Amino acid sequence: MTRLSLNQITTKGWSLPEAVQGCVDAGIPAIGLWRDKVAEVGVERAARLCRDAGLAVSSLCRGGFLTADSPEGQRAALADNLRAIEEAAELGTDTLVLVVGGLPEGSRDLVGARGRVRTMLAELAPHAGDLGVRLAIEPLHPMFCADRAVVSTLGQALDLAEPFPVAQVGVVVDSYHVWWDPDLPAQIARAVDRIAAYQVCDWTLPLPADALLGRGHVGDGCIDFGALGSMVAAAGYDGWIEVEIFNQQIWDTPGEQTLATMIERHRAHVATG
Amino acid sequence: MTRLSLNQITTKGWSLPEAVQGCVDAGIPAIGLWRDKVAEVGVERAARLCRDAGLAVSSLCRGGFLTADSPEGQRAALADNLRAIEEAAELGTDTLVLVVGGLPEGSRDLVGARGRVRTMLAELAPHAGDLGVRLAIEPLHPMFCADRAVVSTLGQALDLAEPFPVAQVGVVVDSYHVWWDPDLPAQIARAVDRIAAYQVCDWTLPLPADALLGRGHVGDGCIDFGALGSMVAAAGYDGWIEVEIFNQQIWDTPGEQTLATMIERHRAHVATG
Repeated sequence: MTRLSLNQITTKGWSLPEAVQGCVDAGIPAIGLWRDKVAEVGVERAARLCRDAGLAVSSLCRGGFLTADSPEGQRAALADNLRAIEEAAELGTDTLVLVVGGLPEGSRDLVGARGRVRTMLAELAPHAGDLGVRLAIEPLHPMFCADRAVVSTLGQALDLAEPFPVAQVGVVVDSYHVWWDPDLPAQIARAVDRIAAYQVCDWTLPLPADALLGRGHVGDGCIDFGALGSMVAAAGYDGWIEVEIFNQQIWDTPGEQTLATMIERHRAHVATG
Repeated sequence: MTRLSLNQITTKGWSLPEAVQGCVDAGIPAIGLWRDKVAEVGVERAARLCRDAGLAVSSLCRGGFLTADSPEGQRAALADNLRAIEEAAELGTDTLVLVVGGLPEGSRDLVGARGRVRTMLAELAPHAGDLGVRLAIEPLHPMFCADRAVVSTLGQALDLAEPFPVAQVGVVVDSYHVWWDPDLPAQIARAVDRIAAYQVCDWTLPLPADALLGRGHVGDGCIDFGALGSMVAAAGYDGWIEVEIFNQQIWDTPGEQTLATMIERHRAHVATG
């Protein structure tokens, strides 16, 4: 349990104070925060709540959405990401997760959108570094390429991170998004020093009507967490393991029960290595 | 229009004789057949219908499902694929599309499943070559990795094809399955002489409740067919361009109308290169 973290989206029905208390009651030592939940109580109070409860903040979700093709859209994205970096620093986490954004409405220019991610990272990375925050590029499953993240593989995320100092830009390994990738072992091995976060949940079928909400508890699907965990460990990552689940049925379950299942599955499938 | 082919699934409501007549009426010179539709009339009659109508058979869909982990399952898959090879030869096409299959029920061994595809290909490829049929490995979008095809990228398909003579094993480039891949330009360039089929349809959102049925007419989504077509042409492919669409709304549309839309979109987006 020493590396387990609750990503707050997993207990979407809980406010930030409820999630903090839930972690304390369950003995979970860390929490990954979401900006909307933080905003409900204010950054300062959120930081104090976590600190007073003795909880580490494993990450802040999320910055990103960097693919706007208008100057105004890009300026707004920069401003919002600079705020997110400041919030991360104030909350005491060194990791800001970036979901980079999809294609602009009506666009078919995937190459252009990917290029804008690169340009925007160059603007943001030094500011993040100044505040001791690392931008963690999250490759999302290719089924989200059009509408959510034009970064679709770990290899692509590492290519984007490469020009920047390790302390400024890293990557997220999220089991749900990368498990299918035939190039995954090579890319995780290459990711030494770049893995900023390891997030887990399982691939379950059928996909629901809203494809965003198809993730299951670890152990309920077809991902081999033993193999994946070994690769991530071999790459030198020994940080938090965040459970991040988008699933309406799990969101409708009492939080205490979700945390109990999380812990049981963590012990059975993840913490065995 | 000289390279346009109707993949028969696009007009799912039509029997094989109806689809053949539809192509003739619309001036489409080729058809990609499906085994279930062929079986309804018998292979011999299906072959005669296409021949008498002057239609080329661009491909037969489909063989594959090679990932069974039981000896009986593997024997059954081999037998079925040998039959499919014979049917392809009898129908006068040199291309048998392979959807390789997903994980066996309850399995988390993706590496093992991928290994079985390799083994089974080695069994099948010489038989295909003997009959003048090429096995065309189709990488499917990674969202189908668990249940339909453990081959998820063009690079992976090319790796699988590489040990075999070009005449025995090739790959399918299907816009819907590969458009998101950041490695696509490099892999298409590498695919010289291995591209056995080029299939087109568009990525449209939102994904429907059944993720299999989300494909749209060319031009209705976010795929840049100009760029993709140029890459495929630069790799030396000058064969059929099959329109293959799984979409309930399009299946509910009269076939003549679907073919008219296909032709219009082909002229606007695909045949411009």
